[in-house]
Amino acid sequence: MKTLLLVGIGAGDPDYITYQAIKALRRSDVIFLMDKGAAKHKLNALRREICARFLDGHTPRFAEGQQPEREREAADYRASVDELNRDKQAVFEQLIDEQMADGETAAFMVWGDPSLYDSSIRIIEAIAARRSDFVYDVIPGITSLQALTARHRIPLNSIGRAVEITTGRLLAEGWPQGVDSVAVMLDAKDTYRRFVGHGLHIYWGAYVGTADEILIAGPLDEVAERIATTRAEARERNGWIMDSYLLRKEGVARE
Amino acid sequence: MKTLLLVGIGAGDPDYITYQAIKALRRSDVIFLMDKGAAKHKLNALRREICARFLDGHTPRFAEGQQPEREREAADYRASVDELNRDKQAVFEQLIDEQMADGETAAFMVWGDPSLYDSSIRIIEAIAARRSDFVYDVIPGITSLQALTARHRIPLNSIGRAVEITTGRLLAEGWPQGVDSVAVMLDAKDTYRRFVGHGLHIYWGAYVGTADEILIAGPLDEVAERIATTRAEARERNGWIMDSYLLRKEGVARE
Ligand SMILES: C[S@@+](CC[C@H](N)C(=O)[O-])C[C@H]1O[C@@H](n2cnc3c(N)ncnc32)[C@H](O)[C@@H]1O
Ligand SMILES: C[S@@+](CC[C@H](N)C(=O)[O-])C[C@H]1O[C@@H](n2cnc3c(N)ncnc32)[C@H](O)[C@@H]1O
Repeated sequence: MKTLLLVGIGAGDPDYITYQAIKALRRSDVIFLMDKGAAKHKLNALRREICARFLDGHTPRFAEGQQPEREREAADYRASVDELNRDKQAVFEQLIDEQMADGETAAFMVWGDPSLYDSSIRIIEAIAARRSDFVYDVIPGITSLQALTARHRIPLNSIGRAVEITTGRLLAEGWPQGVDSVAVMLDAKDTYRRFVGHGLHIYWGAYVGTADEILIAGPLDEVAERIATTRAEARERNGWIMDSYLLRKEGVARE
Repeated sequence: MKTLLLVGIGAGDPDYITYQAIKALRRSDVIFLMDKGAAKHKLNALRREICARFLDGHTPRFAEGQQPEREREAADYRASVDELNRDKQAVFEQLIDEQMADGETAAFMVWGDPSLYDSSIRIIEAIAARRSDFVYDVIPGITSLQALTARHRIPLNSIGRAVEITTGRLLAEGWPQGVDSVAVMLDAKDTYRRFVGHGLHIYWGAYVGTADEILIAGPLDEVAERIATTRAEARERNGWIMDSYLLRKEGVARE
């Protein structure tokens, strides 16, 4: 049997690591690394830092998967995600076949929480479904949205109300019905700007929990342009950006 | 100055604690306890266990706030929440005044994450707004929804789609528009039963991450009655229950 642990490591500060994740990494023989693109170097450095700091002298091997680079803005979003996931599945299978001995445990350190806008669970489930020599488990981690709300010191929801977690792409189709709080991830296009003039408050953050963290909050009408400029500059400076935000209808908490 | 740390401790397994939370507890002089009701004993025992296991010999004082018991099912939900929060604010202020010396740090160990259906941030913010001797910070923790998805080994969202986080009370008003995944908390009334016959899949969990954990998953039409019975029995047996679930339109991942 081979065991793979999908370990959420939190989305930013290495101190977001849970004790459960530390225990999982300590019992791992090998750590799979799979990142690519502009953020790869930074994110893998953070993974290595976590291992160096928290594993109490235990030194698992590192094995890097070679993922093919693909076109980022494909016309059909779902088709391109499917393609990416097929690639990722092939890379995982290769790592499992070539980098693990029978009886060994591997860990894959997932940014944030494996349940949120991450394909690892689906991919590993597909692999496990057709192999009898393979089991896996999932360990939760602090998401980027929790980092965002903690750093802004705000609740995610208004009292007794619902929250929608969505993507920039979906938000571009309009304000989700029936909710006053909308948390937005994966927005490459400053979609919040479309909602100026709607009485919203925004809590925005980039690289939250890291040394590069930037936080901006305020009435959307007043801060939207400042966020757009700050975001563009930071992206330029770092070569990549990860940012997310919460939009809330103003006055809701006092409704 | 007095400092209060709102520390998310995760929602179940003590190992959900983050290293950031451990550091916060280690620098605390006093820990405020505020639970009440049927779960009080269990939850406070878990808080003490966390302190005993992770604080490396550091032993903060414990100070228990005396919250008045109130009617649980008030006619006006918002009014009763407001009342509860006023009570809780008074208790916090009393703890700050009577149990902390100037320069000290207190921690309040919040179940799960302080951002999710928890009033502590709002209450502490209100206190901080009118005192000049008081600062606070928020430390995120693993939510019950992350515990739920990790234990079921499922993603929260379908690929590229939105998720709504809501309450049993709101779900009773109907399926939220525009989403295929709905995570439900605070449901005392088995509201999922209303959605039998709608092609949904349910992932349900009670006491997730604890020794009493119960997980049931499957097509809602097939498992709804089993969940209802299991839930009633567990609640009877333990005197209280905490459960949550994810409902997903079937076939969405293959859409
Ligand atoms: C592919 S998703 C992965 C999310 C991750 N699994 C989590 O739990 O947060 C990547 C998106 O997460 C958000 N994100 C991740 N880390 C972030 C951070 N430190 N600060 C702000 N946003 C972040 C951004 O919206 C980014 O586009
Ligand atoms: C007042 S809310 C607090 C939520 C908490 N702040 C969090 O981050 O999960 C309480 C609700 O959380 C859910 N919950 C908390 N702990 C849970 C657990 N271990 N298993 C299942 N549901 C849980 C239940 O739906 C419960 O009604």
